[in-house]
Amino acid sequence: MGKGVHVQDLPGVGKRYDIDLGRPDQRISVVIRSGGTRDLYVFASSSPDPTAVIELSEEQARKVGAVLSATFFQE
Amino acid sequence: MGKGVHVQDLPGVGKRYDIDLGRPDQRISVVIRSGGTRDLYVFASSSPDPTAVIELSEEQARKVGAVLSATFFQE
Repeated sequence: MGKGVHVQDLPGVGKRYDIDLGRPDQRISVVIRSGGTRDLYVFASSSPDPTAVIELSEEQARKVGAVLSATFFQE
Repeated sequence: MGKGVHVQDLPGVGKRYDIDLGRPDQRISVVIRSGGTRDLYVFASSSPDPTAVIELSEEQARKVGAVLSATFFQE
């Protein structure tokens, strides 16, 4: 599963994951901060600036992750 | 985990998941199409129009999901 994901340590901050979507105009980066907070960067154009930035708590990120993986089930 | 996620059937299309992030200016919606493709809608303002839309294959969505859930490990 490692293919297409570039992981980079950000000393004092956390880890950055760049997910290659095989298109120059679509890219997703996630920074997982040491405290658990995630910054989701969505690039929907070929600009180096993100189109959207969303801050997610650990719980929110797990929820979004479960929906994307289709492992989310309503309680 | 169901709290804050609204699921809606889209007949003939698939399922739509609206993930409430507890802020009027941040929202994420995911449409999982019957074929497995996911449409990720990111709302980073209070506008009803998405700030960014990304199309993900099932494999790509699982990758992003694993990163967000912090269950991603490099091979």
